[in-house]
Amino acid sequence: MLTDPRDLDAALARSAAAAEALRRIPDGVRAGWLDAIADALDAARDELVPIAQRETHLAEARLVGEVSRTTGQLRMLAAVAREGSYLEAVLDAADPAATPPRPDLRRVLVPVGPVVNFAASNFPFAFSVAGGDTAAALAAGCPVIVKAHSGHRELSRRTAEIVGEALARAGAPDGVFHLAEGREVGTALVAHPVVKAGTFTGSVAGGRALFDIASGRPDPIPFYGELGSVNPVVVAPGADAARDEELAAGLAASFTLGAGQFCTKPGLVFVPEGSRIPELAAASVAAAGPAQLLTESIANAYAGGWDELAAIDGVDVLAVATAGSSGVTPGVVRAPLDTFLAEPRLGEELFGPATVLVTYPDKAGVAAAIRGLEGSLTGTIHAESDEDIAELVSALSDRVGRLLFGGWPTGVAVTWSQHHGGPWPATTSLFTSVGATSVRRFQRPLAFQDAPTSVLPDALKDANPLGIPRRIDGVLTPGAAR
Amino acid sequence: MLTDPRDLDAALARSAAAAEALRRIPDGVRAGWLDAIADALDAARDELVPIAQRETHLAEARLVGEVSRTTGQLRMLAAVAREGSYLEAVLDAADPAATPPRPDLRRVLVPVGPVVNFAASNFPFAFSVAGGDTAAALAAGCPVIVKAHSGHRELSRRTAEIVGEALARAGAPDGVFHLAEGREVGTALVAHPVVKAGTFTGSVAGGRALFDIASGRPDPIPFYGELGSVNPVVVAPGADAARDEELAAGLAASFTLGAGQFCTKPGLVFVPEGSRIPELAAASVAAAGPAQLLTESIANAYAGGWDELAAIDGVDVLAVATAGSSGVTPGVVRAPLDTFLAEPRLGEELFGPATVLVTYPDKAGVAAAIRGLEGSLTGTIHAESDEDIAELVSALSDRVGRLLFGGWPTGVAVTWSQHHGGPWPATTSLFTSVGATSVRRFQRPLAFQDAPTSVLPDALKDANPLGIPRRIDGVLTPGAAR
Repeated sequence: MLTDPRDLDAALARSAAAAEALRRIPDGVRAGWLDAIADALDAARDELVPIAQRETHLAEARLVGEVSRTTGQLRMLAAVAREGSYLEAVLDAADPAATPPRPDLRRVLVPVGPVVNFAASNFPFAFSVAGGDTAAALAAGCPVIVKAHSGHRELSRRTAEIVGEALARAGAPDGVFHLAEGREVGTALVAHPVVKAGTFTGSVAGGRALFDIASGRPDPIPFYGELGSVNPVVVAPGADAARDEELAAGLAASFTLGAGQFCTKPGLVFVPEGSRIPELAAASVAAAGPAQLLTESIANAYAGGWDELAAIDGVDVLAVATAGSSGVTPGVVRAPLDTFLAEPRLGEELFGPATVLVTYPDKAGVAAAIRGLEGSLTGTIHAESDEDIAELVSALSDRVGRLLFGGWPTGVAVTWSQHHGGPWPATTSLFTSVGATSVRRFQRPLAFQDAPTSVLPDALKDANPLGIPRRIDGVLTPGAAR
Repeated sequence: MLTDPRDLDAALARSAAAAEALRRIPDGVRAGWLDAIADALDAARDELVPIAQRETHLAEARLVGEVSRTTGQLRMLAAVAREGSYLEAVLDAADPAATPPRPDLRRVLVPVGPVVNFAASNFPFAFSVAGGDTAAALAAGCPVIVKAHSGHRELSRRTAEIVGEALARAGAPDGVFHLAEGREVGTALVAHPVVKAGTFTGSVAGGRALFDIASGRPDPIPFYGELGSVNPVVVAPGADAARDEELAAGLAASFTLGAGQFCTKPGLVFVPEGSRIPELAAASVAAAGPAQLLTESIANAYAGGWDELAAIDGVDVLAVATAGSSGVTPGVVRAPLDTFLAEPRLGEELFGPATVLVTYPDKAGVAAAIRGLEGSLTGTIHAESDEDIAELVSALSDRVGRLLFGGWPTGVAVTWSQHHGGPWPATTSLFTSVGATSVRRFQRPLAFQDAPTSVLPDALKDANPLGIPRRIDGVLTPGAAR
């Protein structure tokens, strides 16, 4: 465990040595480490979940499910490493007749080197010590240093022990994985020359500060932050007329899920003027008992943010959020579009179980409002099949990373197709932090020109010993069936 | 032409409108615009080359070849847009039986929006107005604003006219392409909210300043700079013994090509102690007449940098670089490894026809020295087939983007496999600025969840109307033969 900045150089020298050792270890072997971590976490579930419950106040069922998601994610990224497309192998034969003559040229993606991952507060398993960023970096072949979140310290330490033991048993080299604690160590990690990339899931202010350190280094490194997101939802007039009760119930369930502490919480909902959805949603959360938020500072930010929202001129408070020693209750406000356009605060994320409903006069008005929003992870449209939603799709496409039709944005499937990212401040990058392609954040291209077979990585050898998909002389060729 | 910062908002409003219009234009149509630009430039070659000769002092044959490379690049990226892999389309079917149930999810890459490209001085065609960055951004579906290089202003204006006319004739919407001039406009472009990405090829200082503006925006944008590169070369003892004369001649030709004004110029060459290569290379350039560099400021920087190099204690000057009104002559210095390790200046790029030869006692010494280098675009190993180069390959792999075995790094084939990039300061990113994958710099993922077919982009429709390669339920499927 790394808690003292003075120990940083020694720990990172081990990370650097591990990065070098990882280059010589086949993808399949490395994938086995991810499976081993997954197996060890599954086996320790009954020990870990109670620690997580105590530290985060999240419900047992949710945490049990989160362990499964986390281990599924590890196994999925192991499968991605074995499948081999992630290497983006390209082979172009020499062409001596070209002008100028073309050499034999082959390209593959290689790991960037040691990566520091800042764990999130709201997913103590899936976005924490053994979460998606750790799985993706290891799948790519990068040593990992996880900066633990102070909101679940004991869980982080115990998870790290389990990860470390699983890696050691599986034969991984020393230095592949470190746990670090403390803000000072965290910022020093981002600035350290051995570290080649960083990830973060959390607040805009915290992520921006780390992004600025990473970008301001003498040798800037990529810093993948997943920061703030209001996740706009638009209810089209036809859907409102056809099923307002169902939509209100769905919204209430989604924005209060996990006490509203999801980055995909629907925090901004556009409904037609006269819609009953705001009152119905408010009524459906009115009886909700208090819920403890993850940390005291999150609870304080929720209470303070709510007071600001509720005090805005023109805003109707439909369900009053309260905060006390036993927790917080959900809040619902409604504002007309004009008020929304005049008050930027209504378009900013409030972490916790609150949502803002904005009533709009027509679809042109709501599309224009959406074009003025900051970026979000998700955008959702509820419409009947005969409604013209082209303009809404166009406006939302420009502002979000995932576009939902029906349904609610909470819930992020870990698949090849997933994109969990979006325009600033949803993320700082053109990449996802969830799903198969999250691995690309930790890779850089390396081309080999006229190389003897003996020095080529397996991915680039003529015989394709890994059986992976490759592009050969411009033509994509699938891998061996497996 | 955009020269006044006060005109920026109006011009960029047209870029933003073009970005919106581009979304509705099929890839094949857009690819046709690139072909049309290529055809128009080929047709204007005899008009453009003399302008370029006058403004850059580059030789006619080189410039004629560069036009072909530029138009070949445009056509190659048109083919990439048609082939469709660049969209990275992924379709995952719904799985209602999964826990939790999985929605229908489809992912595609979409254009980021308007891009500003800073033209380079040293490739007035291939890295300038209609160069690789412009071709890649247009291929990705992004409007382009090119900031012209002051070193070839007339050529830039005339090229921009030809590009603009070709686009208009081909039916491209207004605002797809702008030319801008002047440093003030350039920096304002990087900071402007409508601009979503930037590219630059040039000095470390200039690129860093723009990178800092891009990263410091309220909404940071990616900035792809290709900055400095010494392109280390290692001659192993066996190769030195077997063919020192051939290697010396090859080196002399490569570092003086285009008066040493290539980003891939071999500026640092490690040879065994006692090698005759330094003297042979110096002798082979001794008779070279003066060459005019691209601009007066580049000539001044060359003369000043050379004086610094030559004055370092322990450095042998083998060929004296001179600078005068008729141009500059090549310079060659030699230093022992100890001197090199003590003098960081010997490991920095000097733009122009100079190279530094470092004599090493053994391969362990040179490998350690390479591990201490800054990043480069290329690294080259000359070795006999029976020499053990594993350690050299490992050390160079960590510091460069393209690894050559034999040959010389000047000359960059525009192919699917090319990587023109590398660790800082070679580039600021994990991407290439040359070749098929250069397009990825200007794309971001967008996922569609449970979307009706009517709103899906063609790339994601079940029927695959574009016939492009896609990943379906985890399995890569090639596109239609074409």
